[in-house]
Amino acid sequence: MEHYGQLPLNQSQTRTGRKREDILTLSNRVGDTVLFRARVHNSRAQGNKMCFLNLRQRTESVQALLVVTPERVSKQMVKWAAGLATESIVLVEGVVEKVAEPIKSASVSDVEVHINTLHLISGVDGRLPFSVEDANRPEAEVEAENSQYNRVLLETRLNNRVVDLRTQTNQAIFKLQAAIGKFFRDYLEGHGFTEIHSPKLQGAATESGASVFKVSYFKGGAFLAQSPQLAKQMAIAADFERVYEIGPVFRAEDSNTHRHLTEFMGLDLEMTIEEHYHEVMEMLDGMLVNIFRGLRDQYTNEVEVVRKQFPADEFKWREGPEGTFRMTFKEAVDHLVADGVDPEVLDDINTENEKRLGRIIKAKYDIDYYIIDKFPMSLRPFYTMPDPEDPTLSNSYDFFMRGEEILSGAQRIHDPSLLCEKMKQKGVEPDSMKLYVDAFRMGCAPHGGGGIGLERVLMLFLKLNNVRRASLFPRDPKRLEP
Amino acid sequence: MEHYGQLPLNQSQTRTGRKREDILTLSNRVGDTVLFRARVHNSRAQGNKMCFLNLRQRTESVQALLVVTPERVSKQMVKWAAGLATESIVLVEGVVEKVAEPIKSASVSDVEVHINTLHLISGVDGRLPFSVEDANRPEAEVEAENSQYNRVLLETRLNNRVVDLRTQTNQAIFKLQAAIGKFFRDYLEGHGFTEIHSPKLQGAATESGASVFKVSYFKGGAFLAQSPQLAKQMAIAADFERVYEIGPVFRAEDSNTHRHLTEFMGLDLEMTIEEHYHEVMEMLDGMLVNIFRGLRDQYTNEVEVVRKQFPADEFKWREGPEGTFRMTFKEAVDHLVADGVDPEVLDDINTENEKRLGRIIKAKYDIDYYIIDKFPMSLRPFYTMPDPEDPTLSNSYDFFMRGEEILSGAQRIHDPSLLCEKMKQKGVEPDSMKLYVDAFRMGCAPHGGGGIGLERVLMLFLKLNNVRRASLFPRDPKRLEP
Repeated sequence: MEHYGQLPLNQSQTRTGRKREDILTLSNRVGDTVLFRARVHNSRAQGNKMCFLNLRQRTESVQALLVVTPERVSKQMVKWAAGLATESIVLVEGVVEKVAEPIKSASVSDVEVHINTLHLISGVDGRLPFSVEDANRPEAEVEAENSQYNRVLLETRLNNRVVDLRTQTNQAIFKLQAAIGKFFRDYLEGHGFTEIHSPKLQGAATESGASVFKVSYFKGGAFLAQSPQLAKQMAIAADFERVYEIGPVFRAEDSNTHRHLTEFMGLDLEMTIEEHYHEVMEMLDGMLVNIFRGLRDQYTNEVEVVRKQFPADEFKWREGPEGTFRMTFKEAVDHLVADGVDPEVLDDINTENEKRLGRIIKAKYDIDYYIIDKFPMSLRPFYTMPDPEDPTLSNSYDFFMRGEEILSGAQRIHDPSLLCEKMKQKGVEPDSMKLYVDAFRMGCAPHGGGGIGLERVLMLFLKLNNVRRASLFPRDPKRLEP
Repeated sequence: MEHYGQLPLNQSQTRTGRKREDILTLSNRVGDTVLFRARVHNSRAQGNKMCFLNLRQRTESVQALLVVTPERVSKQMVKWAAGLATESIVLVEGVVEKVAEPIKSASVSDVEVHINTLHLISGVDGRLPFSVEDANRPEAEVEAENSQYNRVLLETRLNNRVVDLRTQTNQAIFKLQAAIGKFFRDYLEGHGFTEIHSPKLQGAATESGASVFKVSYFKGGAFLAQSPQLAKQMAIAADFERVYEIGPVFRAEDSNTHRHLTEFMGLDLEMTIEEHYHEVMEMLDGMLVNIFRGLRDQYTNEVEVVRKQFPADEFKWREGPEGTFRMTFKEAVDHLVADGVDPEVLDDINTENEKRLGRIIKAKYDIDYYIIDKFPMSLRPFYTMPDPEDPTLSNSYDFFMRGEEILSGAQRIHDPSLLCEKMKQKGVEPDSMKLYVDAFRMGCAPHGGGGIGLERVLMLFLKLNNVRRASLFPRDPKRLEP
């Protein structure tokens, strides 16, 4: 084979089994001849005898150098390399060499690769919608005076999500998304939880008919589950004791905000309680703190990569013997009133006041994470257990990150007659959910749980300012593609 | 509090933090007074001074004994206990005592609990549709001559799934279901895969319009994803290198068979290949064998529990240096022809012949698991890479367990012009999937993958004879509840 050129389309013609390298490991391979597949992040010729290539693999990159040499590297080869389109995928063979000065433009800064052979595996057909370099640039640099950089708008990114996802920032964001799921599961499995998978197709609109998607189902109709709420409670009635699920949640709300998606990933759990629903609240808290700690301590590199594009204060929570900061709904209202909010609007705490409360707590305690307990019964769904002393209050809680809600949960009603009573009060006909109510007639242990929006946790931990950035292919009322 | 009686509805009134036990640990607690929550599996009075209770927690059970004693246990208390409905949930305090003869009716056979106090946490309201004991009985016992046992039909079970799921068999089945997911993830994360979550709501009907569910989406329409195929391939084009997903898959096929569901869990993966698609096939194989080995070695107890109700030969595969048994599609056809099947019907291998092939391979090699490689191009979707030598063949494979397909996969076409050509040949308009095709125009590494039906793996490993038994709340053309 020639020293350069386009390879035939890979249809699995050959299998040499020759090892190919990760760019990340090249620092330890000085003097070795290595083979690796990478993207051309950029290339620049210097005269007609030399060409520099920046080669990328996910969050890593290395500088490679092609210089005319007798026998091996021709002028034609250098010209061909200099003409390679950005984002082409190439197969490189070269020698790893130590460099005198650190290379700032690459993540691997102490070595470069002197190319012997260079082949095109997959080219680019047409024009890129934007460059990955532009897409990876911090907003501040784009906005700086005299900046010549192209801004890549969120819409453009999402329309061309495949290219957008190649930025080092996005590669890191989705490693962190996977890490959150992993910490969630590991913690819960360590505490005796079983993973379940509940159906997303439902025979009846659940919880409330308003915000549910309708599906054509053979000759009839079905609905998309708004959460695994009913199924996970039925799993408790079926003696599963402690269950969790990671699965899509569908909300047909026409909300075009920075934090709403029509489809998002729910991290859900439900568990029996022995005596008190704070057993659940504390489990959720322990699990979330375990996630925060895991991201901070085990994913330092990925968090750093994201902060280069999205600068943010470190996410803080209260550790030590005192534990996570908690307040009741009433105390939260008191904080807001003391800060000047009109008490008359505080039957509920709207998004604006949620954020204000976040700022108050941040200013007072320097923390970004806290729990509000004891929500008024009127604000919670029918399946929420009322407080034993004050029937206007409920055994329910929300968890917050940087002033935005990420988790909602409660003790549930496991008594069928109280459940039916509360359903009627909220305008839900018990007969429309007969099999759910029946589950409690067959005997059910006291239980509680909660549901977390995965994308919100990710967005708020990293301060990404839009939940779409935390979703691989986001869905909202106006977006169903790609 | 009295020594017995109904507790007030638990609304989290108190929190003593007093430890409650797992039945499983009682063998080590001889002489101790213990407290635990359990279901009344059954109760039988002996005269008016004594009552035996079989108490159950998931797959475990223990015998408890209530005997009239001065001061503590009255005749009234024994009468009350004897009257407790099966499936009630009780809180028991008692002393653990060694027994002389093993107790056959309980999973904990070496001790029993002498009850001091007994309280009802949650009663049963109405009649149970069937007893958990009946639901847990092996078919052979029900069918035995002179059997007086009630058969519980699958329909009845599924209509009352919450009670059915309480059987020890089902408790074990769903622990095994969770274990399969865990082994899948652990293996892939150990091999550099990242978990992704792709949208189930799609703007266009994908792959083929025939078997897709339509959703009302605000003022327009959407479709439910038939698999994460397109999204996971786009993740590869976006440089994720190796991805996996565990998520629901929706198929609008009106198939009322033992192995079809309209919603099932897909275990999906996609990875770049360096040279040859057998890199993917071997990854899938290694991962599946890791699951089989894990279930056999780490879940012996659960597999045993299931086999009591569903007797089955041990699931076998070829280990050692030879590795998993593989054959080409052509070799599979040859096996069938040699067994007497008319070659004219073997352009495709239908379900019946799939099973026949399973029996042939079982008889010849004593294995239940094998791979068929090199399917004809005509049988595979448009995105399948053709074989480099013979364009009528493809770089694609199916995996089988006990003569049924559980996994389908292939090398994919990463070249946009070949992709468009194959789309047109299969009657798919490339423009209808523009963003998908565009992903490959922006440069994409060679790649392949596969998708596994979680419920099928579970059903076939355990030989459950119906996929609905392997789904928590199964969905089929006639069932959307519970």
